[in-house]
Amino acid sequence: MFLLMKCRICGKKPIIYMPQHRLALCREDFISWFERYTERTIKDFRMFTNEDRVLVTVSGGKDSLALWHVLRKLGYNADGFYLHLGIGEYSERSRRKVEEFAERLGAKVIVVDLMEELAGIPELKKATSREACSVCGLVKRYNFNRVAKEYGYNVVATGHNLDDEASSLLANVINWNVKYLGRKYPVLEEEEGFVRKVKPFCKFTEKETALYALLNGIEFVEEECPYSEDASSIFYKETLNRIEEKFPGTKLRFYLEYLRKVYPRFREVEERELQRCKVCGEPSPSEVCPVCRLKERVAERKA
Amino acid sequence: MFLLMKCRICGKKPIIYMPQHRLALCREDFISWFERYTERTIKDFRMFTNEDRVLVTVSGGKDSLALWHVLRKLGYNADGFYLHLGIGEYSERSRRKVEEFAERLGAKVIVVDLMEELAGIPELKKATSREACSVCGLVKRYNFNRVAKEYGYNVVATGHNLDDEASSLLANVINWNVKYLGRKYPVLEEEEGFVRKVKPFCKFTEKETALYALLNGIEFVEEECPYSEDASSIFYKETLNRIEEKFPGTKLRFYLEYLRKVYPRFREVEERELQRCKVCGEPSPSEVCPVCRLKERVAERKA
Repeated sequence: MFLLMKCRICGKKPIIYMPQHRLALCREDFISWFERYTERTIKDFRMFTNEDRVLVTVSGGKDSLALWHVLRKLGYNADGFYLHLGIGEYSERSRRKVEEFAERLGAKVIVVDLMEELAGIPELKKATSREACSVCGLVKRYNFNRVAKEYGYNVVATGHNLDDEASSLLANVINWNVKYLGRKYPVLEEEEGFVRKVKPFCKFTEKETALYALLNGIEFVEEECPYSEDASSIFYKETLNRIEEKFPGTKLRFYLEYLRKVYPRFREVEERELQRCKVCGEPSPSEVCPVCRLKERVAERKA
Repeated sequence: MFLLMKCRICGKKPIIYMPQHRLALCREDFISWFERYTERTIKDFRMFTNEDRVLVTVSGGKDSLALWHVLRKLGYNADGFYLHLGIGEYSERSRRKVEEFAERLGAKVIVVDLMEELAGIPELKKATSREACSVCGLVKRYNFNRVAKEYGYNVVATGHNLDDEASSLLANVINWNVKYLGRKYPVLEEEEGFVRKVKPFCKFTEKETALYALLNGIEFVEEECPYSEDASSIFYKETLNRIEEKFPGTKLRFYLEYLRKVYPRFREVEERELQRCKVCGEPSPSEVCPVCRLKERVAERKA
């Protein structure tokens, strides 16, 4: 059926069909649609304006590099931030991709090496009983926020796409993780010690961001992190893809209807009791924040 | 692994392992566990007591016959109600099973023939643009309630099991059907024109009710309704079974945590504006209720 379709804008042969929008587009019209749609998402959710200083966290993957590319093209004041995770060759390759891309964009990228700050992910995994992905998420969130403040950015933008957002929503709905649901929104406003966090690609599928990156000649790291995503997050992505295949359009609707009809009911639940970590001064749920406790453990292991 | 397990009560060879309860049981202990667990569900949700007159809607399938069996065994005042749907030989066979079972139980069964009341499902399907399952659900709910009141029963009990409840919950969560979520509970209290409705098997999987029926020599109709369930309900059952296989225990938790943590947030939404149907006097969302409108359409087609 796709072969018989025409680009809705110009009538030429389409390069993609997006069932959730009932929209077939050719190469050029997809690129400009993608950029306008990003702009609209940013405006609809009041993510940021030209006045804001945005720090895009880039991993070297397609989503984050494409996001940085689009934000610059749309004229936003967006620099990059790369956290070197110390995962051997994988991290080295990612870092090179990011630095090459920054040069191509003519943009500034801040690089922080986790090995110097604390310890690489492999070492952190050994120092704790947590899964690699869980520790990695923790140190990323901590550093994104800390570095943004240190360098005077008031917004952190991440490349999470619809597949990421909808599948983690599904996992948390299946387990009715109510606390999580109270913070599941593509904009988290600035609050005591936290800069604003935004996800401008939350309405694009993985396929769409990948296509945009490819069409723009963005060279990204295609290999997965060797620790890879945990089994459950891949499983819920597959589950959602099966539902989408059966009922096209479900994935986007599941996510957007959640934001519109359900999130407001859970939002009130959230009662974060945050204090300042007595070691680093960052916001923390306990006297010493989880990252400083990690630091202590790493030091103990070395001693 | 199951082969190495022992019945938790008596240590004999088990007949079933229920991962959500981490419980292996032999034949005898499964039967008595099943009955005690039904009793506990009835009490926990305050479904009914010995004072209530309960009408069990029986289709001839394993769930409803097993439910009737258990309720009688537990000493409840429970009669049966069979609605003959006029679906050819399938309905005839079901009716015979129900009547034979009533005799075995020494219990009363009320039989209503939809062909006399209104028209059989095949004819109703033709008279409307709705799916067979949707029309069938409508006339069932209407008749269960109407007949219960007519014969002086104050509670209607249906055989819905955990697979039914959790999969329809999933479908409605995926589509964020908020109105439905506001009424998704195993007890719906009596309200203007409606008797109380209860689902005492809501915590048992299909496998468990089937095993209980088999072990008690209950002869039930095994064939599916020729109209069968609509594709989407089967699809969501399969989806949930895949999740359960990957993460045993999820199905029950998904359902129970919903009841505990989420339902209360949606309940308030529900604002049913009900009037009385000006034709039949039953509660209705509009001046003439959907069943009386069906009746009109059938009459028009005959004229």
